[in-house]
This record gives sequence, C-alpha cells and structure tokens, in this order.
Amino acid sequence: MVDASNLSLNTATVREQWNLEQCVEGCLRHGFGGIAPWRDKIHEIGIERAARLVSDSGLKVSGLCRGGWFTSEGKITDAVLDDNKRAVDEAVALNAECLVMVVGGIADGSKDLPHARQLVSEGLAKTLDYARSQKMPVAIEPLHPMYAADRACINTLRQALDVCDELGDGIGVAADVYHIWWDPELADQIKRAGKSRLLAYHICDWLVPTSDMLTDRGMMGDGVIDIAAIRKMVEAEGFCGLNEVEIFSANNWWKRDADEVMRTIVDRARDC
Amino acid sequence: MVDASNLSLNTATVREQWNLEQCVEGCLRHGFGGIAPWRDKIHEIGIERAARLVSDSGLKVSGLCRGGWFTSEGKITDAVLDDNKRAVDEAVALNAECLVMVVGGIADGSKDLPHARQLVSEGLAKTLDYARSQKMPVAIEPLHPMYAADRACINTLRQALDVCDELGDGIGVAADVYHIWWDPELADQIKRAGKSRLLAYHICDWLVPTSDMLTDRGMMGDGVIDIAAIRKMVEAEGFCGLNEVEIFSANNWWKRDADEVMRTIVDRARDC
Repeated sequence: MVDASNLSLNTATVREQWNLEQCVEGCLRHGFGGIAPWRDKIHEIGIERAARLVSDSGLKVSGLCRGGWFTSEGKITDAVLDDNKRAVDEAVALNAECLVMVVGGIADGSKDLPHARQLVSEGLAKTLDYARSQKMPVAIEPLHPMYAADRACINTLRQALDVCDELGDGIGVAADVYHIWWDPELADQIKRAGKSRLLAYHICDWLVPTSDMLTDRGMMGDGVIDIAAIRKMVEAEGFCGLNEVEIFSANNWWKRDADEVMRTIVDRARDC
Repeated sequence: MVDASNLSLNTATVREQWNLEQCVEGCLRHGFGGIAPWRDKIHEIGIERAARLVSDSGLKVSGLCRGGWFTSEGKITDAVLDDNKRAVDEAVALNAECLVMVVGGIADGSKDLPHARQLVSEGLAKTLDYARSQKMPVAIEPLHPMYAADRACINTLRQALDVCDELGDGIGVAADVYHIWWDPELADQIKRAGKSRLLAYHICDWLVPTSDMLTDRGMMGDGVIDIAAIRKMVEAEGFCGLNEVEIFSANNWWKRDADEVMRTIVDRARDC
C-alpha cells in the first residue's frame, strides 16, 4: 500500500492553482513525504528562498524538473550548458534526489533524429561532468514516443540505459509510468536499470480516449495503466523512493480545487 | 525517386471524398501503380464487384486493410476468428500482396496489457493457419505506442518480429513510417525483418504539433519524418513493393478535393 508519506507532489500537478509556498503547505497538510518542484515555480521566488522553504518543511525533494532541452539551438551551445549547470546548482541547493532531464526533441526545421540523439548524448556527457563534481545524480526521463519530435528524443528505457551505459556513473533514469507503460520490454529494462539507476518513479494514468497529447493525463485509477504492477517491478529492484505524482490535466485536475486534487491523490495512491 | 507508378493509394487517404470505384478511377487518372482498400469501402459494394473492379483496373493491391482486432471481446472467439478468415478470403479475392493486421488494444475494462498481447499472438496464430492454406501473407502492422490502449498492443518492429519469429512462415510486417519513425532501433529492426518479412511500406508524415492522435497525419514533406532515409533502409533489404500512402487528416486532406490530394501526393512523393 502506498500511503501519503510515500507520495511526492510534482508541482506540475497543481501548477495552475498553487505557487511553491502553497505547494509546500499543501504537501504538509495532506501528509505527503516529498515534493518535486518545476523550475518555473522556483524562479518565481528565487532559489535561495525556495531552498529555505523546502528545507524548513522537512519534505524530501524527489527530483528537480528539469534540465535538458539540449537540442533547442541545433547544437550544444554555452547557453544550453550554462542553463543545465544552473539546474544542477538548483538541484543541489534543494537537496534533490536527482535532476530530471527532459532531453529535447528535433531542432526546428530539422528531420535528423539521429543527429538530435547525438546532441543529447553530448549535452548529457558535459552536464554529467559538472553534476558529478557536485554529487548530483542525473536522471534521464525517457518520454513517450509521441514526444520524440518536440520534447524528448530519448523514448524508451532501453535507449536511456544505453546512454547511461555509455556515460558511466552518476546517471540513471526517471521512470514515469505514463511514458513507459506500453513498452513490451518494460519488465526487462526495469530489471536492467536496477536500484542504482532507478532514480525516480512518477505516476499518473493513461486515459482512453486521450484528448490532448500533452495536457490530458489521468489521475491514478482513471486510465488503463496497471500502476501496481509497475510499482512491483521497481520495488523488486530495491527502489524505495517516493511515488511522485505528475498529472498534466488542463480540462480536469488543473481546474479543480487543489486540496481536492491532493485528497484524490492520497485516496487513489492506496491502490498503486 | 518515387514516381506515381511506385505509389499505392490507401483508401483511408480519401475516405471522406471517394468510394472504391472513384478511388480506382482516381488511381488510374493519376498514374498510381496500386491501391490498398479498407474493408469498409469493399463492403459498400460487395467483395465480388470490388474484386472485379480492381482486377479490371490493372492496379496492384499493396494490401488489404485490415484484419486483427483480436482483443475486442476479451478472448479469442469464433466471431473474431471468422471475421479474420473473411478478411483473408477478401484479400485473396483482391489478389492483395498481404492482409494487414491491426491487432487490437486492451479489452474494455482491462488493464492487462500482457494478456492482450497473449490474445493477439493466439489470434494471429490461428488466423495464420488459415491464411497459409490460402497462400495469403499476413502483415502485422506495429502501431505507434500512443495506440497501445485502444488500437494495437503491438507497438514496435522488434515486438512484431518477435511474434513473427514465434509463428514461422507466412507472416511479416507492414512498416508505416508514422508508427515507427521515432524508434531508436529502426535501422536494426528493418534489417532484421529483411526482404521476406517486409510485406508493406506505408508513408505519410508526423506533424508538429499534432492536434489529434488519430486524424492529424501529415502529407509527406509537411512533417519531421525523414522518409527518404527510411525508404533507403527498406530498399537496402530488397523491398521493391509500392509506397502506400495512408493519411488520416480530418481537418485538412479529407476536406480537400480528392484530385488535389492525389496531385499533391505525386508531387511530394518524388522526394520520398
């Protein structure tokens, strides 16, 4: 059973309702064990204040969302690397378990997916050098293949782990059920990742039908993902981190009272 | 260069504008080498008339769309198998190169994707027995992972070829660029398929952004797929079948004059 203390609130879940301070208070009020802020919420109040707020709360930080976007300029520029270094620094300041990487899709005007993937490997390698020096684990989040063009060209656990194999220590994966549930190799690749590379575990659900490719994720239990089965797979490897809840939902959960969202999460997570 | 005689019109591309007779006439008028009818277009006029129409036209039939949907009743029933046998018979009557299989997603109310996949293997095996007796090749079409829940739980070439390996002769894959372009293993799995199992090759494009998960496919050249590169991969294996054009496009191509659609296809295919 997953109880509230095993949950982490990814701030995207209530991004339309709450700022970071409200998120922290909400997590405490509903007994969550942790939080996973997006950087936009942090930048609203500055990293120093954000870090103090989170530290004072006693909440764990299951991850910082996000670094990456290595392909945005069609090559690895200083600007791209500097932004990723800042993300590492912010993750360190927050005492985050990991920095989550959404690696970026194909550059505007390009059709060269293999090239995008090369850029990503290069950007990850360079960021990892710095992250290692700061002792901040880097978590590649493979995104669902429907985001290959515009958000992330790392699309399966196998592919992410191949990159990890290539880059060595200090890098692993963020396993989000929304992105990986369909994968015929899911069980094998979770096993391959193992405890040391399973850096984060995100939950939500896949709705049928899905009305929007980005902002129509479901609350756990409202869709078709066998979340409990995936949880068992990561637990079998020894993963004992928080269940981070990340729900983009423009027409449903983002429109509701955020405390209702939190109560629903706690209620639904029991069966995850 | 792909010229019109290398093209096949999948009737879904003009499904809102033309019936089968108009599709056949359109293919001849625009110099297409073949056609790939959906069964709904055939059932409108009956298989005998459809077969005569196509045979008289001299067009090749690059495939019949579609058999499959093995999971629709939550188990493999006689009704499901009978429908697939009829699809085999229709493919034979049309002298089709293959019967394309859209295998079905998770049954209503189920979250058991592994079970759905077992059902699919069972349904394919049974249909294949009959198809072999009729000498009709069966082509598994892996669909994009975003359709795993509701249309097809075979989602990668690797997975489809694993099923083919298990089932033996008489079965291969339909490689549709829309479904497979994102796959990091694309080149390796096309090579693995080889000429004998590359039974069909479908083209269209992936639009950025994509406004609808089902009906917003792009015309070749309007999206991000490097179609020429994928064509090279299948040709390197010796594939010499037609380029079947299958574009679902509720808000664009389905609303245009069908002859304009055909002219655009011929024009755009040159660079594919």
